[in-house]
Amino acid sequence: MPDTSGALPPGSTIGILGGGQLGRMLAMAAARLGLKTHIYCPEAGCTAAQVADATTIAAYDDEAALQAFAAAVDVVTYEFENVPTDTAALLARHVPVRPGARALAVAQDRLAEKSFMGNLGIKTAPFADVTGPADLAAALDEIGTPAILKTRRLGYDGKGQARINDKAAAFDAWDAVKHQASILEGFVNFEAEISVIVARGIDGTTAAYDPARNDHENHILSLSTVPSGYSNEIEAKARALAEKIAAELDYVGVMGVELFVVADTQDLVVNEIAPRVHNSGHWTLEGCTVSQFEQHMRAVAGWPLGSPERHSDAQMTNLIGDDVDAWLEMAAEPNTGLHLYGKGDARPGRKMGHITRITPMTTG
Amino acid sequence: MPDTSGALPPGSTIGILGGGQLGRMLAMAAARLGLKTHIYCPEAGCTAAQVADATTIAAYDDEAALQAFAAAVDVVTYEFENVPTDTAALLARHVPVRPGARALAVAQDRLAEKSFMGNLGIKTAPFADVTGPADLAAALDEIGTPAILKTRRLGYDGKGQARINDKAAAFDAWDAVKHQASILEGFVNFEAEISVIVARGIDGTTAAYDPARNDHENHILSLSTVPSGYSNEIEAKARALAEKIAAELDYVGVMGVELFVVADTQDLVVNEIAPRVHNSGHWTLEGCTVSQFEQHMRAVAGWPLGSPERHSDAQMTNLIGDDVDAWLEMAAEPNTGLHLYGKGDARPGRKMGHITRITPMTTG
Repeated sequence: MPDTSGALPPGSTIGILGGGQLGRMLAMAAARLGLKTHIYCPEAGCTAAQVADATTIAAYDDEAALQAFAAAVDVVTYEFENVPTDTAALLARHVPVRPGARALAVAQDRLAEKSFMGNLGIKTAPFADVTGPADLAAALDEIGTPAILKTRRLGYDGKGQARINDKAAAFDAWDAVKHQASILEGFVNFEAEISVIVARGIDGTTAAYDPARNDHENHILSLSTVPSGYSNEIEAKARALAEKIAAELDYVGVMGVELFVVADTQDLVVNEIAPRVHNSGHWTLEGCTVSQFEQHMRAVAGWPLGSPERHSDAQMTNLIGDDVDAWLEMAAEPNTGLHLYGKGDARPGRKMGHITRITPMTTG
Repeated sequence: MPDTSGALPPGSTIGILGGGQLGRMLAMAAARLGLKTHIYCPEAGCTAAQVADATTIAAYDDEAALQAFAAAVDVVTYEFENVPTDTAALLARHVPVRPGARALAVAQDRLAEKSFMGNLGIKTAPFADVTGPADLAAALDEIGTPAILKTRRLGYDGKGQARINDKAAAFDAWDAVKHQASILEGFVNFEAEISVIVARGIDGTTAAYDPARNDHENHILSLSTVPSGYSNEIEAKARALAEKIAAELDYVGVMGVELFVVADTQDLVVNEIAPRVHNSGHWTLEGCTVSQFEQHMRAVAGWPLGSPERHSDAQMTNLIGDDVDAWLEMAAEPNTGLHLYGKGDARPGRKMGHITRITPMTTG
């Protein structure tokens, strides 16, 4: 039995920074275990508040609100990686914050992330640091074209990025990223993206779910399929990489690790990590007995991790924007888990829900 | 596709009378579908309120509170069968109440329930109406001993019952049930209790989960096992009985039907029905893609029913009183869904949680 002497008893309260669908599904998973949740988010009416025991609506730099929040909870976690460093530091003076500062620092900055991987001997896309136009010219000489200029911070779902097909487009790209500190990334000739959802407990135990194969549309995850279709050997390598990263970060909680499978060689290259539950792990709600959301709550509360085994094959489809209008037809499909996030306005590009279709296990 | 033209859209609010663990698990299932819940219960701090979008704390005969509740929700359901008739009637004047008045009337009164079954040609334990000591003497002549005197109303988990081993004990039994209108029930020589969790939609579609075999300790459900171990033929008969009862009641929602399997003949005898989600259906949270809780929310909201197929074998164990103290050891078990209800005080006999252990499917 793992060492869980620091486990928070049922009835304890987990504070969650962020009130979106990930916070919502975390709160529901905590409730299953008899743990309470307290959501902290800047916008009134956030979707996670509908299922949480308590909510604080305040800005992430509101020190008084943060102190009251810290006093009201037993541990703090978050549903998004861009938690301001000062916010996390202030909270950590009063209450454990899991995952910790190192994971946030690495995941918030593409340069730090890629350097971290390099130091571990883990492959990434070729990259160069770009702080100004002169760097960019040198970087293009080094990396070649086509390449992508990406802001070091605050990019997601294709935002904060500009593709450079030839050197003449360099200045337009620099303008497109608004002259922010960036990296230039070379292309990886990959045949697929897979991801590993890995959990690490406070005692250092790790548990990784079977990798999913991910397909994107308009830079947004569209489909995650499990099993991935790759060999046991490649899947074991992917899991081992994710576990190595988690251990090196002294990570506590669930982390998503996106990997490219390189064409021909089938080498694995880390695309990025997310220090939180991950969209490509939503299939675990239907495919496993303990979902990624419960797994994160277990880790953060110092409980033993659940077994990551799955009992079914699964395919998860995101419902983006008006995809959700077909809710009634989807609800009628057999062997399907339909999840709607309780958001009012189905704007284009907005994640409104997801649906997971399960079938009996085909491969081990 | 079933007729679901009356389906409440995501964002609608389901009112739930009762704030215990069944209401809690219903609220969590509703949230999965993007439906909000509003709990109505008499006691502050009820466990369902921790996960619901809104809560009203008021007595079941508080007409002003009931009217405000009816105005705030789109449909009303309940987590316990003893909803006062006047409460249900008042609400039904403003908003649909599902399941309806007929189901409540039949389920609240053991005499009405047994008469209803008799009229349908469905077997029950032998019984006689007992309104006073004279009836009881006559009933004992008819039914024989041993027999059980049960109050017509408000009995559960062995409460409101007195066993009569010989006629001399009749007056003590009559005192034990506090001179309330009762029935005298003969014993059924059964080898097992099984139960069917059946759902019926607003369009009359039904869906029944695989029957569970139930074991009790101290009159409280201890263990539910799926598959039941009985033949496909017996299980099909059990499902058909449950569907017949649901259809006859023009039922909307999930209902639990407890059945005795008679020794030797293997005849099925209805023990009782519960017009709500049922403890012996908790295994569906781990064993099926759509649980009994989500199924009830779907039916009540006028949505299509989910498929009741299971993907795994399951065994559900109730955690009664201080059973829950072993939460940390149970959390470490693989392939296990642990559910703790967020109740503070682990009094003897109190249902504090349950645990479901799943294994790969053995039988269809």
